[in-house]
Amino acid sequence: MWTNTRQVILKSRPDGPVKRSNFEIRKKKLRELGDGDVLVRTIYMSLDPYMRGRMDSARSYAANFEVGAPMIAGSVGEVLESKNDDYSAGDVVVGMLDWADYSIITDNGGLRVVNPEVAPLPYHLGVLGMPGLTAWIGIKEIGKPKKGETLFVSAASGGVGQIAGQMGRIAGCRVVGCAGSQEKVSYLINKIGFDAAFNHREEIDYRDALERDCPEGIDVNFENIGGAMLEAVLEHANNFARSIQCGAVSQYNIPKDQRYGVRNLEHVHRKRIRMEGFIVTDYWSRLDEFVKEMCRWLSSGAITYRVDIVDGLENAPEAFINMLDGANFGKQVVRVGDE
Amino acid sequence: MWTNTRQVILKSRPDGPVKRSNFEIRKKKLRELGDGDVLVRTIYMSLDPYMRGRMDSARSYAANFEVGAPMIAGSVGEVLESKNDDYSAGDVVVGMLDWADYSIITDNGGLRVVNPEVAPLPYHLGVLGMPGLTAWIGIKEIGKPKKGETLFVSAASGGVGQIAGQMGRIAGCRVVGCAGSQEKVSYLINKIGFDAAFNHREEIDYRDALERDCPEGIDVNFENIGGAMLEAVLEHANNFARSIQCGAVSQYNIPKDQRYGVRNLEHVHRKRIRMEGFIVTDYWSRLDEFVKEMCRWLSSGAITYRVDIVDGLENAPEAFINMLDGANFGKQVVRVGDE
Repeated sequence: MWTNTRQVILKSRPDGPVKRSNFEIRKKKLRELGDGDVLVRTIYMSLDPYMRGRMDSARSYAANFEVGAPMIAGSVGEVLESKNDDYSAGDVVVGMLDWADYSIITDNGGLRVVNPEVAPLPYHLGVLGMPGLTAWIGIKEIGKPKKGETLFVSAASGGVGQIAGQMGRIAGCRVVGCAGSQEKVSYLINKIGFDAAFNHREEIDYRDALERDCPEGIDVNFENIGGAMLEAVLEHANNFARSIQCGAVSQYNIPKDQRYGVRNLEHVHRKRIRMEGFIVTDYWSRLDEFVKEMCRWLSSGAITYRVDIVDGLENAPEAFINMLDGANFGKQVVRVGDE
Repeated sequence: MWTNTRQVILKSRPDGPVKRSNFEIRKKKLRELGDGDVLVRTIYMSLDPYMRGRMDSARSYAANFEVGAPMIAGSVGEVLESKNDDYSAGDVVVGMLDWADYSIITDNGGLRVVNPEVAPLPYHLGVLGMPGLTAWIGIKEIGKPKKGETLFVSAASGGVGQIAGQMGRIAGCRVVGCAGSQEKVSYLINKIGFDAAFNHREEIDYRDALERDCPEGIDVNFENIGGAMLEAVLEHANNFARSIQCGAVSQYNIPKDQRYGVRNLEHVHRKRIRMEGFIVTDYWSRLDEFVKEMCRWLSSGAITYRVDIVDGLENAPEAFINMLDGANFGKQVVRVGDE
């Protein structure tokens, strides 16, 4: 049996901002399954800023996408056919699938069976998945915010930021965030308990905003934006601050030599700041521990999670482009097939 | 009895590069000693890059120098007269003294009696003093280089750098440094056991130099220069590298808004780098432990130390200006009075 699928492929590498023309949608007949193979139907597909780095030719921590080959995303899907004893038709799985209606996964390539009753399916790509573990590790292992400290989160309504902020609130911090619209700012303050938030698109000077909203300085910074926001945070950071270097979405679309130069790294030694980067894939061994704690927070209502769903595989390229510009409101997910 | 002294005072705050006119030498009659006071004659006085920050009005980790008041420096001196039971005339002491022939220290203000037989007196301002403790803490507590790793040290022949590099050699690292002249580069390689070194004034592209001299990347960076050198180090750093953020002497003389902007902080998260600043004064409690280990290394010859002595208090301003430009060769010290 041959399966027909649509695939979104990387047609060309972006030079600066990602364009629609960097992608192409093609139809393809998948090969027959061999021993160990699993055929998966995509239900939801995750769009995350880190994927931008994989579109470049420069080596990043995740392997580059290949020109002419499908883009790949963390996805939830249903096993349609399995020649692998670990999976059965009907299983709901999470793993790295093609941007496609159907993918063949070989040799247990990272597929994990999940219980669809535990949470809405998109949560496995967000609060219970990679972005959730990212926030959890960043807060627990790098930032370690203490009661009474101020936690600042950039891109605070995004897939990672909203969890980081709520974890800060649970830890007893003053939690302050920035986001790209007034609607997001209201969400942060009125729905998920941020103490203050500002719309960075409307602030002339980020430092003024930070001084207003973080009157006692910043003890922990959860960095998702980078560039000028990081510079402002360093200015306003307290002695012994920790900066969780998670991402720099403001810079990904800018050619390397034109990126924002941070001029005040002197504060790192003057204020004894620890800036520390991490990659969530180094911490997969903590997944069960994380899921357990996050499920408890979700069921008690201590953490809530907002997902932004775009319909249709054909709309994934545009959704990805818009997400890099901050158009998503909550974790960006694409609904590729029916639940 | 009234003591006449010369003092170097801060006449005006520098706007950009420090100039001779920012200093003035004046004669002053010191007041009579009160209870608890100690009169100290300066023998050697330390010039260190961090003092540049104290000349600005912006708050730094060390209190600012006051315009119209003497500059202050870590110094070795002799107690001439004491109204304090902890000190006696003839004691050799280390502490923060005025840039002056004579200073009055009140209420045990940080004076520490040292044994002049242990080491040449200037060593108490270098390898056995603040710069030594800085290198020792940076390496031991922040960088933690392991055998077989590559340690890169900028400003490697300076008061801190030469110790950091030799500690890396003791730890079994490949040690690479940069310095500002061919003579210094030869010193690093031929006298104190660096595996490689380059003259950063003669390199067109720092990254090329790092690739040549650190063929296996950089695992630990002892950062003394900042700016473009730090940027190149981040490009060439390995995954899980540590950057000991000790100073940024290339930037101190540049107005804040014109400093070098580091454009590639993305590597901090991509490569899981830890950049961590520290201030040596947080670690004074470790002084005895440090001195003990360093004395052992000095007496076994595992560590040697080069001091650059300028003669005469009147030459201190120019020596300071030149040091910020890298003219010193070894730890910069001013001989103010006879031993």
